[in-house]
Amino acid sequence: MIHDSAIVSTKARLGQKVSIGPFSIVHDNVEIGDGTIIGSHCELGIPSSLGDGSPLVIGANGLIRSHSIFYESSSFGKRLVTGHRVTVREMTRAGENLQIGTLGDIQGHCSIGHHVRFHSNVHIGQKSTIGDCVWIFPYVVLTNDPHPPSEVLLGVTIEDFVAIATMSIVLPGVTIGRGALVGAHSSVSRDVEPDTIVSGSPAKFMGATSKIILKDGSNESAYPWRRHFHRGYPDDLVDSWIEEFRHQD
Amino acid sequence: MIHDSAIVSTKARLGQKVSIGPFSIVHDNVEIGDGTIIGSHCELGIPSSLGDGSPLVIGANGLIRSHSIFYESSSFGKRLVTGHRVTVREMTRAGENLQIGTLGDIQGHCSIGHHVRFHSNVHIGQKSTIGDCVWIFPYVVLTNDPHPPSEVLLGVTIEDFVAIATMSIVLPGVTIGRGALVGAHSSVSRDVEPDTIVSGSPAKFMGATSKIILKDGSNESAYPWRRHFHRGYPDDLVDSWIEEFRHQD
Amino acid sequence: MIHDSAIVSTKARLGQKVSIGPFSIVHDNVEIGDGTIIGSHCELGIPSSLGDGSPLVIGANGLIRSHSIFYESSSFGKRLVTGHRVTVREMTRAGENLQIGTLGDIQGHCSIGHHVRFHSNVHIGQKSTIGDCVWIFPYVVLTNDPHPPSEVLLGVTIEDFVAIATMSIVLPGVTIGRGALVGAHSSVSRDVEPDTIVSGSPAKFMGATSKIILKDGSNESAYPWRRHFHRGYPDDLVDSWIEEFRHQD
Repeated sequence: MIHDSAIVSTKARLGQKVSIGPFSIVHDNVEIGDGTIIGSHCELGIPSSLGDGSPLVIGANGLIRSHSIFYESSSFGKRLVTGHRVTVREMTRAGENLQIGTLGDIQGHCSIGHHVRFHSNVHIGQKSTIGDCVWIFPYVVLTNDPHPPSEVLLGVTIEDFVAIATMSIVLPGVTIGRGALVGAHSSVSRDVEPDTIVSGSPAKFMGATSKIILKDGSNESAYPWRRHFHRGYPDDLVDSWIEEFRHQD
Repeated sequence: MIHDSAIVSTKARLGQKVSIGPFSIVHDNVEIGDGTIIGSHCELGIPSSLGDGSPLVIGANGLIRSHSIFYESSSFGKRLVTGHRVTVREMTRAGENLQIGTLGDIQGHCSIGHHVRFHSNVHIGQKSTIGDCVWIFPYVVLTNDPHPPSEVLLGVTIEDFVAIATMSIVLPGVTIGRGALVGAHSSVSRDVEPDTIVSGSPAKFMGATSKIILKDGSNESAYPWRRHFHRGYPDDLVDSWIEEFRHQD
Repeated sequence: MIHDSAIVSTKARLGQKVSIGPFSIVHDNVEIGDGTIIGSHCELGIPSSLGDGSPLVIGANGLIRSHSIFYESSSFGKRLVTGHRVTVREMTRAGENLQIGTLGDIQGHCSIGHHVRFHSNVHIGQKSTIGDCVWIFPYVVLTNDPHPPSEVLLGVTIEDFVAIATMSIVLPGVTIGRGALVGAHSSVSRDVEPDTIVSGSPAKFMGATSKIILKDGSNESAYPWRRHFHRGYPDDLVDSWIEEFRHQD
């Protein structure tokens, strides 16, 4: 399961049925869970003086697509799935079932919950705190420095079920409340209330998310999205969402 | 012409004088036309359950620069040219002479005409329909989901000769009419009339493209750009453009 | 110091203690200074008809991280540091101690001073002129074509000590004056006076940079940033900055 051309340290701890593709490199300080597949041209566990000495831990049944790069001292729960050429620096702590799209750039020193979805080409700045079931769409940047360059880092907080649409930025120290929606091409400079929409640059309050109607002919609200969008989530989680909305429908 | 370190499936169908660089991988379901050059560290024809079983077809006399990734079930006409590290997913159908700049991310399930130019770092969402001779500049995103995340995909339509300037997004379902210009850093939320300029976030009508004057001292209009910009297009096409404007000059 | 799997031309001129990682390629027309470290999966010195025949020159004590790509006919002073997957085209001339973050895309035919910092995923268009000690943050694009596509290239000029925040663009021909600050998510269409803030799309004058207060409890101004931010700069430069502000404090 390890290609002849791959360079895998004998110190790396690989689980059962781990697969490693051609021209990939696995450094010493790495733990990979059972059944995880690593594509070609990857580099895992790059040593770093900015880490805490802990290994890169990738949980079971993950899929790391080709040309991806992970540093040591980060950890990921089971079923991590990445696109191609993602870069993940040290001190990233993520839950289960994270998806990172192609070209994602996770700067490290951040916390990510369960079932989070990063679409292509997101930039997650240091000190970001991201809850569960968050969606971040392409070319979104989470910032941290209020007056760059400086030594002051004010990470952003993204609560559960938030969706941040394409080409938006979240400015340092901002909290985006549970279930809120950030419209595309926005710059969010102030905290956002739960279940509200903000949009524009600077982003302004546009109403409750519930007023957006699904364009599928159902005439139902598009938010909370967990009422209708279930693809890729575990059955027990989806069951809890169905139960949550049973009496509202 | 195939480097010793490259891994090329014996099932792949390679034309005459195809060149494949070091550390590149060519999977089974691939057809490459005569004279095409593949750089180093590429991966071509990644199998995908999201395809239709058809091969990755790359036409004759193409140039795929290093670190690029193509899935199976996409096809490209002759003279495809890419920058480095482009990613192209399954079910992309493109005409002749497409150029994809460095870091381009083509999400697949899209249609692209002839002589299209993507500059660096564009993101082409699924269900996009792109005509002939279109220009898309860096950090432009073509979106598709009107209320993310959802199962509703409304692709955008970009008609012939359109130019979309840097750091702009086109929102789901929008059509940009033939020859229109989208100014830089814009968010296009409504259809755009042919040969008009829109700009801003949300983008607003700014006038006819013909009012923009070339900054080359000629005092001529900068649009339609095919009147003055001919670099890289085939002679017969350029001749037709010259003929088109002969009586207007 | 050169990995067995690396492909290094015998014509390349490597200094003492140069290190080259696995699966990297060094072409003929390359000079690398003493002590420079090249990561894995890199490609250095790609031949180009758009160059002037001069070599790729990388100064002493540099660090090129993995998956990076440099063309011939560019030169960099000592202590160049890059992130992963940077792409640098021909005819880039840079001073000492340049830092290019992950995914940086330097289009070539540009001039860059000393001690410049590009954060992740910047796009430096051709004909850009960048002074000393400039900061450019993620997803910033420096443009050059006033009416794309055309053959007219009007590069931008970024003077010493300027900081351009995330997701901003600078339009063709614009000069950003010494010490100015461009706010995040801005589109700069006109020249910017030294030591002033501009922000928005199109960017408007927002005041003097000196009015921004450091959020570190010091109650001091955050700009000029060289008064308080010294990390990574050489001692003699930092000493000169300390001296510059001694009498103002």
